[in-house]
Amino acid sequence: MTIETDFTHDPDAKSWVESANGHPSFPVQNLPLCVFSPPSGGEPRGGIAIGDMILDLVDIADMLELDAATAAQLASGPKLNDLLQRGPDMMRALRHGVFELLTDDTDKKTIEPALHKADDCHLYVPVTIGDYTDFYTGIHHAENIGSLFRPDNPLLPNYKYVPIGYHGRSSSIRLSGKDVHRPSGQKKPAQDGAQPDFGPSERLDYEMEMGIWIGQGNGLGQPIPIHKAEEHIAGISILNDWSARDIQAWEYQPLGPFLAKNFHSTISPWIVTMDALAPFRTAQPARPDGDPAPLEYLMDDNDQQNGAFGVTMDVYISTAKMREDGDEPHQLSTGPMTSMYWTAAQLVAHHSVGGCNMQPGDLLGTGTLTSGEEGGEGSLIELTEGGKKPITLPNGETRTFLENGDEIIMTAYAEKAGYARIGIGECRAVITG
Amino acid sequence: MTIETDFTHDPDAKSWVESANGHPSFPVQNLPLCVFSPPSGGEPRGGIAIGDMILDLVDIADMLELDAATAAQLASGPKLNDLLQRGPDMMRALRHGVFELLTDDTDKKTIEPALHKADDCHLYVPVTIGDYTDFYTGIHHAENIGSLFRPDNPLLPNYKYVPIGYHGRSSSIRLSGKDVHRPSGQKKPAQDGAQPDFGPSERLDYEMEMGIWIGQGNGLGQPIPIHKAEEHIAGISILNDWSARDIQAWEYQPLGPFLAKNFHSTISPWIVTMDALAPFRTAQPARPDGDPAPLEYLMDDNDQQNGAFGVTMDVYISTAKMREDGDEPHQLSTGPMTSMYWTAAQLVAHHSVGGCNMQPGDLLGTGTLTSGEEGGEGSLIELTEGGKKPITLPNGETRTFLENGDEIIMTAYAEKAGYARIGIGECRAVITG
Repeated sequence: MTIETDFTHDPDAKSWVESANGHPSFPVQNLPLCVFSPPSGGEPRGGIAIGDMILDLVDIADMLELDAATAAQLASGPKLNDLLQRGPDMMRALRHGVFELLTDDTDKKTIEPALHKADDCHLYVPVTIGDYTDFYTGIHHAENIGSLFRPDNPLLPNYKYVPIGYHGRSSSIRLSGKDVHRPSGQKKPAQDGAQPDFGPSERLDYEMEMGIWIGQGNGLGQPIPIHKAEEHIAGISILNDWSARDIQAWEYQPLGPFLAKNFHSTISPWIVTMDALAPFRTAQPARPDGDPAPLEYLMDDNDQQNGAFGVTMDVYISTAKMREDGDEPHQLSTGPMTSMYWTAAQLVAHHSVGGCNMQPGDLLGTGTLTSGEEGGEGSLIELTEGGKKPITLPNGETRTFLENGDEIIMTAYAEKAGYARIGIGECRAVITG
Repeated sequence: MTIETDFTHDPDAKSWVESANGHPSFPVQNLPLCVFSPPSGGEPRGGIAIGDMILDLVDIADMLELDAATAAQLASGPKLNDLLQRGPDMMRALRHGVFELLTDDTDKKTIEPALHKADDCHLYVPVTIGDYTDFYTGIHHAENIGSLFRPDNPLLPNYKYVPIGYHGRSSSIRLSGKDVHRPSGQKKPAQDGAQPDFGPSERLDYEMEMGIWIGQGNGLGQPIPIHKAEEHIAGISILNDWSARDIQAWEYQPLGPFLAKNFHSTISPWIVTMDALAPFRTAQPARPDGDPAPLEYLMDDNDQQNGAFGVTMDVYISTAKMREDGDEPHQLSTGPMTSMYWTAAQLVAHHSVGGCNMQPGDLLGTGTLTSGEEGGEGSLIELTEGGKKPITLPNGETRTFLENGDEIIMTAYAEKAGYARIGIGECRAVITG
């Protein structure tokens, strides 16, 4: 099925859920998955966003047929791993079935009780995240960070060959909206050879990333070839990989970031599916002259032509004072997801090439995505040039790193002429002491 | 309760399970936990080793009382996380209850059907491992590896302050006995600036580690203080952290090991409990003159006096030819677990100090434990000085790194005058192509 023949991409399609039509994030062309509990309470279960509402998949499973019904049943529990495991065909069946229910008003009266105001629902991390891997695909971020941590050697020789990544901490991933405690830890001493300082991080930062959800897994010792890798991806969310730069600078050699990252990561609630994103896939940007071609196991023509995501990401800050004064959040950056040096499929192929088994619900972070243009910096350490140049907010407050009470808000969306704009969601959290 | 007043440490205690008495690993003083299915089949469930047998905890739960009965019920499923979560008192109640059942022969006839020959049972990874963290506490290993990877800079300035660790991959941890597929990957090019090689690792190695199981978890943002850390440890096992050195050398900067480690890790089947280990706890060796004292959050007098483990670890190799010829495995090394530069409690306190939440069943690897004396090298890269000096086996075969068909066998035990010797178990696997 191509984008042209899949009726769920029709920009003129309307839902009888009025708030969906023209909705900036959740028109009927999006239909992202979540886990929620309704305002009346009850166990967490799978849902789908439509306009300002969430459709309860448990309640409407009986109205679906064949694979769509099976998919809704697989999504009836508190985690969506079982649905993700069944792969793209099952995900597509659910999308098509729900699209029909929400565009054809024949059963409107029956379905309406299964719709809940999203603002009144409680949302949950939608899967059990077995393993979380954070990549480092933002080459402009890698260059910026590298020049701060290793001025003589910003981009290491392996960067353009290896999709650099490391294992992150899955236990501390929390949904958007959950406060972030400022971590304490050992911080790099002011001078070489001195004892490290210990205390609350003074260089607390955010990182604008996108999260990629694994759908179907692979067996241990059975690599996923690059041309099959997309079939193992279920969808995307927004990821804020909070980072304590002073802890990171001291601890990260030789085995990588640890406490600097594992105190908390924030994920947006919606799994925006690969089908919803299909119209917004785009060519992987050409590599700069002189860069090596990807090795064969990372090279697939179709992936090079369609493997990138035409998604725009925005970061905002809202300080405690701004909220008190009723000020709007202030935009810190905007940038395209195409700043990934590697495609999502390349990340999956690389991750599994040695035989590592991926499991449904595993999360891959893209790494901080910085556009390379001014205003496209994906972290404060880049915006403030390592904390040396504070930024000034519209109300006169300044920031080098995050202060208690600061809220970071990330949003992302895809839009393209001829298609309905879809939102990826919102990822926000307030720093507490 | 002290070691002296806990009757389960009585070296003269005998079990009516004859094979337990004088058993080199599993006398009644040990009683390690496992998950198994009996020879007749059936669902995986919790068990306890006694001599050559495994006691089925499902079958005997009704014969226990109070907390011991609750503990056996918590261990009735395919994973022991729920039992571990309940902490040391619950674990001790189970130990005491089972000890009484197996030493007092009143109910022998009733219990005997719940005993299965261990060799005929199928064993499983005993918990769901949410997160796996690998530390680097073996200072002699860190020095040896450091001098190979960074000749000018073997031990980095943070090493003696920070219990260095990184997040590992939990999905690819397998039980002892499961074959290990040799991973393929990008390998460091022979000369700087050249394209990396791709293919099967030619420098495949083992790492002799111990695994520490987390029992009770902590909440996100709620560090575990050092003096409470032992209460969060459930027990230990043997861990082989297989490593592809050529992949590691190319990929590990700046974010640490990734594909070099995540293709497979092997764990021994038994969780040897902290109570079983109590008689063998020993003082943390004094730091060499000139080394800094641990920072305050890592310092506890009781931990310094009793926080180390008097456990001896042995590594053996058995090549395909040796097995064909009926040769015994050849011992590669032996060393004490006291070569850890940090105690287990320090690892837990450090891991959580920034607020990271630990969960029951999380696994902490000690890192490769190399004794610092000849014959105490915990990996082949150390034994062969970076692959430059092959070792010769008794049958004339030589090895720099592992070849297909090689089996690595790790064992560990604790012994001390006045106490029954206990075994930690066995961790073995064969390399396949």
